[in-house]
Amino acid sequence: MKTIEVCLTPELLHQHSIVEKVAVVVDVLRASSTMITAFAHGLERLMPVAYVEGCVALQRLDYLSAGERDGAKVEGFNFGNSPYDVMHGDLQGKSLAMTTTNGTLAIEKSKSAKKLLIGAFLNLSALADRIKELNEDTLVLCAGWKGQMNLEDTLFAGALVAQLTNDFKAKGDSALAARLLYENAKNDLYGVISQTSHAQRLKKLSADDDMRFCLKKDEYHVVPFLESEHLVV
Amino acid sequence: MKTIEVCLTPELLHQHSIVEKVAVVVDVLRASSTMITAFAHGLERLMPVAYVEGCVALQRLDYLSAGERDGAKVEGFNFGNSPYDVMHGDLQGKSLAMTTTNGTLAIEKSKSAKKLLIGAFLNLSALADRIKELNEDTLVLCAGWKGQMNLEDTLFAGALVAQLTNDFKAKGDSALAARLLYENAKNDLYGVISQTSHAQRLKKLSADDDMRFCLKKDEYHVVPFLESEHLVV
Repeated sequence: MKTIEVCLTPELLHQHSIVEKVAVVVDVLRASSTMITAFAHGLERLMPVAYVEGCVALQRLDYLSAGERDGAKVEGFNFGNSPYDVMHGDLQGKSLAMTTTNGTLAIEKSKSAKKLLIGAFLNLSALADRIKELNEDTLVLCAGWKGQMNLEDTLFAGALVAQLTNDFKAKGDSALAARLLYENAKNDLYGVISQTSHAQRLKKLSADDDMRFCLKKDEYHVVPFLESEHLVV
Repeated sequence: MKTIEVCLTPELLHQHSIVEKVAVVVDVLRASSTMITAFAHGLERLMPVAYVEGCVALQRLDYLSAGERDGAKVEGFNFGNSPYDVMHGDLQGKSLAMTTTNGTLAIEKSKSAKKLLIGAFLNLSALADRIKELNEDTLVLCAGWKGQMNLEDTLFAGALVAQLTNDFKAKGDSALAARLLYENAKNDLYGVISQTSHAQRLKKLSADDDMRFCLKKDEYHVVPFLESEHLVV
């Protein structure tokens, strides 16, 4: 039976042999949720970019731009790091350049994986099905918050471990802890996550609706994956 | 109100300003539990040592020796890394040199703290009282397992955060996650920890009794702290 491991922050990624694994990058609030929403609304390809300046350069090649710094939309960009933003844009067949504080860094660090998938509650079941099809040792990389673990990504990792419990062997205490946390929080994810400092920041940014949306399970069935420099579906 | 933070593994210690804080080093299975047990049975001072060879050198200065490598007692040492071992030794007024895989490393990394305390379930309430007396920003450093987080140290960190909830502000998602894990596991700590690979290793080493003992709360009232090169009470 193949294994599933959880890496709680990119700073611990060196403990895992990512080149031998399928990597699932998760940044529930809000990068991976926004990416999944964009693809569900017709986006053709997405380039994750580390710096704001990279998005600006790609705008000149007719890429749309999305992203945040400290949670707020970058000035001059088409969209913030928000599912509601992108679902109301015209994305059909378009290319998007996106930069976020933690999510794009986690993707950058995972490029050497056998396959890189994007996960969030919004595509939980479709993602689990895709992982079962691939049937390789799998690593869930939580984007965290500036190097530290965060609760929402850990809870999502736990949800995925729980969903794959009959098909994959959970390996390591991080996977076990994530599953235990999820099983105890699953009936009130919003209430539990509201206790975090990140949730408090989002509420101040009037992003409470975003947060509620990002915690919906199986809203979409797309599973973005990395192909060369772009995420596609 | 002062804060309490949790660092899940020594590899994330650089994220915390330890020089400004009281540090609590925890290695529930079994280094910190064994240290606390030794002091409760009359030990005068304990030098944590990174290498087996260091303990051997100190034996020549009439130090007793304790420690493990890969969980098993080091050949030629007086004691293993086991509370039951040390409680049956004659420790009254003695000096002990001790080396363990994870615990002594965590102590080494925390020496720059304002004050370094040793914690485990065995001295939970006495430790909480001591932290309240000191009334400084506090960091719980989980020794983990070879750089990775482990469940038992995280659960202890959660127990301490819960016990200090009226007196200290829990800061960061690690502290919140640890408290949530503890609150859901507290009525069956042994059952939850038995699921971990470390518990399976200890069972193979016939250390199941040690594990049960290490999960007892408030068996002792000593709180070892670092004074120059030695732990004392």
